[in-house]
Amino acid sequence: MSQQPVPVPDGLVDAFWEYERALMADDLPTLDRLFAPGASTLRGDANGLLVGHDQISAFRGGRGGAPKRRIVQTHVQTIDRDHALVVAITELERGGRGQQTQLWARTRDGWKVTAAHVATAAPALDTRVWRLVGDPLVEPLGHGDLDGETVAVKDLYAVRGQRIGAGNPAWLDEARVEPVHARAVELLLEAGAAVRGIARTDEFAYSLAGANTHTGTPPNPKAPHRISGGSTSGSASAVSLGHATIGLGTDTGGSIRVPAAYQGLFGIRTTHGAASTYALLPLAPSFDAVGWLTRDAGLLRRVGEVLLPPAPRNPRHDLVAVPGLIRMAEDDVAAVVDGFAADHGAMRESWDLADLSLWLQAFQTVQAWEAWRERGGWLTGRLDTLGADVRGRFEAASLIDDDRADAARGVLAGARERILDLLGDRVLVLPSASSVAPLLGQGLQAVRDATMGLTCLAGIAGLPAVSLPRSTRQGLPTGVCLVAAPGRDRDLLDLAADLG
Amino acid sequence: MSQQPVPVPDGLVDAFWEYERALMADDLPTLDRLFAPGASTLRGDANGLLVGHDQISAFRGGRGGAPKRRIVQTHVQTIDRDHALVVAITELERGGRGQQTQLWARTRDGWKVTAAHVATAAPALDTRVWRLVGDPLVEPLGHGDLDGETVAVKDLYAVRGQRIGAGNPAWLDEARVEPVHARAVELLLEAGAAVRGIARTDEFAYSLAGANTHTGTPPNPKAPHRISGGSTSGSASAVSLGHATIGLGTDTGGSIRVPAAYQGLFGIRTTHGAASTYALLPLAPSFDAVGWLTRDAGLLRRVGEVLLPPAPRNPRHDLVAVPGLIRMAEDDVAAVVDGFAADHGAMRESWDLADLSLWLQAFQTVQAWEAWRERGGWLTGRLDTLGADVRGRFEAASLIDDDRADAARGVLAGARERILDLLGDRVLVLPSASSVAPLLGQGLQAVRDATMGLTCLAGIAGLPAVSLPRSTRQGLPTGVCLVAAPGRDRDLLDLAADLG
Repeated sequence: MSQQPVPVPDGLVDAFWEYERALMADDLPTLDRLFAPGASTLRGDANGLLVGHDQISAFRGGRGGAPKRRIVQTHVQTIDRDHALVVAITELERGGRGQQTQLWARTRDGWKVTAAHVATAAPALDTRVWRLVGDPLVEPLGHGDLDGETVAVKDLYAVRGQRIGAGNPAWLDEARVEPVHARAVELLLEAGAAVRGIARTDEFAYSLAGANTHTGTPPNPKAPHRISGGSTSGSASAVSLGHATIGLGTDTGGSIRVPAAYQGLFGIRTTHGAASTYALLPLAPSFDAVGWLTRDAGLLRRVGEVLLPPAPRNPRHDLVAVPGLIRMAEDDVAAVVDGFAADHGAMRESWDLADLSLWLQAFQTVQAWEAWRERGGWLTGRLDTLGADVRGRFEAASLIDDDRADAARGVLAGARERILDLLGDRVLVLPSASSVAPLLGQGLQAVRDATMGLTCLAGIAGLPAVSLPRSTRQGLPTGVCLVAAPGRDRDLLDLAADLG
Repeated sequence: MSQQPVPVPDGLVDAFWEYERALMADDLPTLDRLFAPGASTLRGDANGLLVGHDQISAFRGGRGGAPKRRIVQTHVQTIDRDHALVVAITELERGGRGQQTQLWARTRDGWKVTAAHVATAAPALDTRVWRLVGDPLVEPLGHGDLDGETVAVKDLYAVRGQRIGAGNPAWLDEARVEPVHARAVELLLEAGAAVRGIARTDEFAYSLAGANTHTGTPPNPKAPHRISGGSTSGSASAVSLGHATIGLGTDTGGSIRVPAAYQGLFGIRTTHGAASTYALLPLAPSFDAVGWLTRDAGLLRRVGEVLLPPAPRNPRHDLVAVPGLIRMAEDDVAAVVDGFAADHGAMRESWDLADLSLWLQAFQTVQAWEAWRERGGWLTGRLDTLGADVRGRFEAASLIDDDRADAARGVLAGARERILDLLGDRVLVLPSASSVAPLLGQGLQAVRDATMGLTCLAGIAGLPAVSLPRSTRQGLPTGVCLVAAPGRDRDLLDLAADLG
């Protein structure tokens, strides 16, 4: 490094300002030209790092312009006549300042940015994750095993003094102020936890994506530019981001397990009926189960000690894996679950999967019939308030007559017996979701169906299921799911704490 | 720029990891050694840019260690054998990911960082600025001139369904849930604004610093590493950061004008009694006035149309400046106010300042006597709950007997006459605060007294005062204050909109 002041290289200042003007004009061809071509160009911001000119260009094409700003300070570190670092302080029209660090290199085609790091003032709250947040929003009601912990409450649980929003602004508008806490919230508060805030959910919890049409998709910090998973989307992202330590949610057909897998979190869906659903807005009461997510297995278990009823313990947990079920996941995920099963001595067992698609259909039918029974009255005349995917599901649900629902219930009764039979007092090893988190903007219906083929098993039989965070070879989060017989929640939590 | 993959220079990887280990161990000598010496070394994060090795070293010495993290990705752009950019993705133990961009240069003493840009996941809410925040916290109650605007409510105003915290956790613990909105809050909601959240204040508004001992000092984006100003500290920072467009506050002895000046915002303290203080927790009712801050003068005026009573208008506003008052400010600030007065043809007039320190003392005496009358009952036995500066003020206040307060009131009656006499129907040009925002960690008592010597004039006479944002030659925010006769709030708001 030279100790002498070094002049700013020729042409750099012009290139810098050309870039700034193009950014403000959202002039994509100029921006593309001023970023270095190739696979090693970098651009990072609070939503993650983009690697390679193509990713950066695609991002710019999709965002509809950068926030308006002006440059209020620049600092240039000249490296040589062809390279310099430019640090700029920006002042945003919407308020707050930011910093932009760019490495520029002179090529035959002129000056190009090879790496950019962009930061702006964070918003008051990340509205993709939260509807309300406080320091805390609700103080603890006692002291206990959860002293110092903070809870992100899915916007389906009653919080005294607040309304339930259920992910839909029209519902929120009409909602009453809740007179009491949901029982699950109250138990957490009594054990010493504080409520950090009320977190976003997919509308009426009727999705596994987290892509709420009104409030956007919460970020997935371990898999940037990919969906969060849902419907416990806000709670999961809040935990991933370190905004809360406990993400309280629900799981009807995978709404805890899927975001746990996509974001690399621990999660549990409890035995149907084991943890209180008092003052929880239902989706499909026959399947709805309380669940939560954490970043460590010890805390996952401690929450269970607070929310779960006492139960006889069974230290046996022989693992069993059905290769046909594992193969329902994409190869990268299946490889992780296969490896887990092998490492932990799971017995491999074949199991007749011929009826699985029938079971899934029956599960979705009864779920839909119940969802319409719960929400149909309110939604009649208000379907327009829903995002396209959730609306489509409710519209289909409205067409299911009682006979079809009854027939589906018959199918599920048989399925339940088969599933309990497979399990016995063993623990089934499964993929938590059929794939890693899809990229933002990707179609999601096929992913949903593939994942529900796996997650519906615990839903159908009301079984507890924990998801353990693992990584694919590509370094993306995925989940290994452990499913046990009803009431064995605490056994699973012990197992999760052992296996980590 | 080379199109060939370039090998990572010798020794860089070792230096990178040495730095990372030193950071995790808070090994200050090693960190100092691995940052390039000299005045051009840069380190930026969400709190602003530090320039020069000394500033960076002082920052590290004061922060008590970096958040625990691990490196999960690195990308190296080799510039030549002595220079490389290293971009690292970090995963924080507390949750969330970050990005660190470093430019490294090889010197005779080995590899050194010449520039670093550090970003981590933003917290759920900035607890220095906010106690509660929502999307929104309170929906508008109507439509009007403030449609689309968002309000940061100082934690002294009642918000229905919430408690008043007054900047003191013990007070908050015992506070009731408010049954109605403060009148000022209600009027803003009826005019279409939403409440974004409840913003921090100095304890019981009894400070001009914003350095709340319990929740820290809100950031000052336009003057990084400097105090926010108070006591309307959180509301002011919320507006600066773009978290809200309107910062609702109070001004007893400068609590709007000082943060406006320190942060480069527009602010108004209204005529005493003109805007409703219903359901506002008082500090010193004889002086407490409603006020607000914005980033533009047009909005400052629109809020006035909502909160102020109708009043006869007077388009005359001859400016007058008292050189002796301007000279009470530090030179950089005085130069700005002098320039403003000259640019706008203010008449220069001398005025007898001999009694000014007596007036200030009398103002502080009556303020203290009233503050103790308001809060003394609750504070008795609870003085320990206060930060040192506010505690000292309340302790002194508790010693003021009625005779001393009466005598001070007599002084203020005379002062009031003299001030109104100076004004007539003119507008007095003053510094809003005696200095730019002091650096964090600096002693504040002298600054407070110097500023109050200026701000007490409007306080004593119950006058409206607007603060216009200006910059010193060093580029730091400061404020020009315009003070008029009681009831001329709207005239001042027009003038502010004209002069910008």
